[in-house]
Amino acid sequence: MELTEHTLQSETAYAGGFLQVKKDTVRLPDGKEANREYIRHPGAVAVLALDDAGHLVMVRQYRYPVGRTFVEIPAGKIDAGEAPHLTARRELREETGYQADEWLFLGTAYPCIGYSDECIHYYLARGLTLSESTPDEGEFVETLCLPLAEVRTRSLRGEVCDSKTLVGLYWLDAWQNGSLLGERI
Amino acid sequence: MELTEHTLQSETAYAGGFLQVKKDTVRLPDGKEANREYIRHPGAVAVLALDDAGHLVMVRQYRYPVGRTFVEIPAGKIDAGEAPHLTARRELREETGYQADEWLFLGTAYPCIGYSDECIHYYLARGLTLSESTPDEGEFVETLCLPLAEVRTRSLRGEVCDSKTLVGLYWLDAWQNGSLLGERI
Repeated sequence: MELTEHTLQSETAYAGGFLQVKKDTVRLPDGKEANREYIRHPGAVAVLALDDAGHLVMVRQYRYPVGRTFVEIPAGKIDAGEAPHLTARRELREETGYQADEWLFLGTAYPCIGYSDECIHYYLARGLTLSESTPDEGEFVETLCLPLAEVRTRSLRGEVCDSKTLVGLYWLDAWQNGSLLGERI
Repeated sequence: MELTEHTLQSETAYAGGFLQVKKDTVRLPDGKEANREYIRHPGAVAVLALDDAGHLVMVRQYRYPVGRTFVEIPAGKIDAGEAPHLTARRELREETGYQADEWLFLGTAYPCIGYSDECIHYYLARGLTLSESTPDEGEFVETLCLPLAEVRTRSLRGEVCDSKTLVGLYWLDAWQNGSLLGERI
């Protein structure tokens, strides 16, 4: 079945300090026209930082849109022109203070395909050493190192319920059972 | 560490046909002020529909924000006043034509906590029977029934890369190995 929607017109409907909303007119597969509204996002990274004792480095942050704190894996937006694997190193260090000797690229996932072009690149970081965290101005982050088994238990109880983190746990499972090898970077 | 951000002011910065952007002024934990922009979303459901032969019912859809088709689990937005488990039944039937005898609630995840309040409720549907699909006007969806093992393999190759679907596979793993029981609904 031909499913492609072709862009007829594209405009920026809202340009905020952080969010940019595009509003496009498209030609549907049946020839009709429709509008598509979506967020333009620069892309992001997420890091599964696993220490030698099997603890996962997590952060606790207040997530204003949802109005509560979340325990999640370190993550952040890619700066303009920045290679994603460098974003991963930067975000892990800034948010948690950890640096890693070994990095593997695990995969890319799209968190919000209904209304955002965001993609998240996932990395596994091992060989961790702790220095000092340097969060961005206005960013308040608490670091927690939790046994991986506890993170899994919490995720099944609904206490770890950030999708980005759950996708990370899915890939970490696959890496641990040998079905996902990852790419050394 | 106190992480809560308190709302000082809230406005609708953009009200489109589909997306609503809020722009709030908040008091940060250190007493400073900051702006928070985010999407208001009605919430959604996603359905893992597993047939007796171990096939997962998937849909292929063009996702305009990303500019490509995705193979994903059936999902959709909750209508105003609709109970999520009824949305799940409705979306599965509308998108794929399948109805299910047995429904389990698996859990809730937040796909986009940086800039959206969306939550997705996940359901497992079994005891499937096929009637006729009735997609919404302007919605073009192809149904695929894939062996679950193939879906997993594709996800590890990056071919199934929608986060909502990967979270579903994570919980389906947990349900299959007995660590997640689900709630009968």
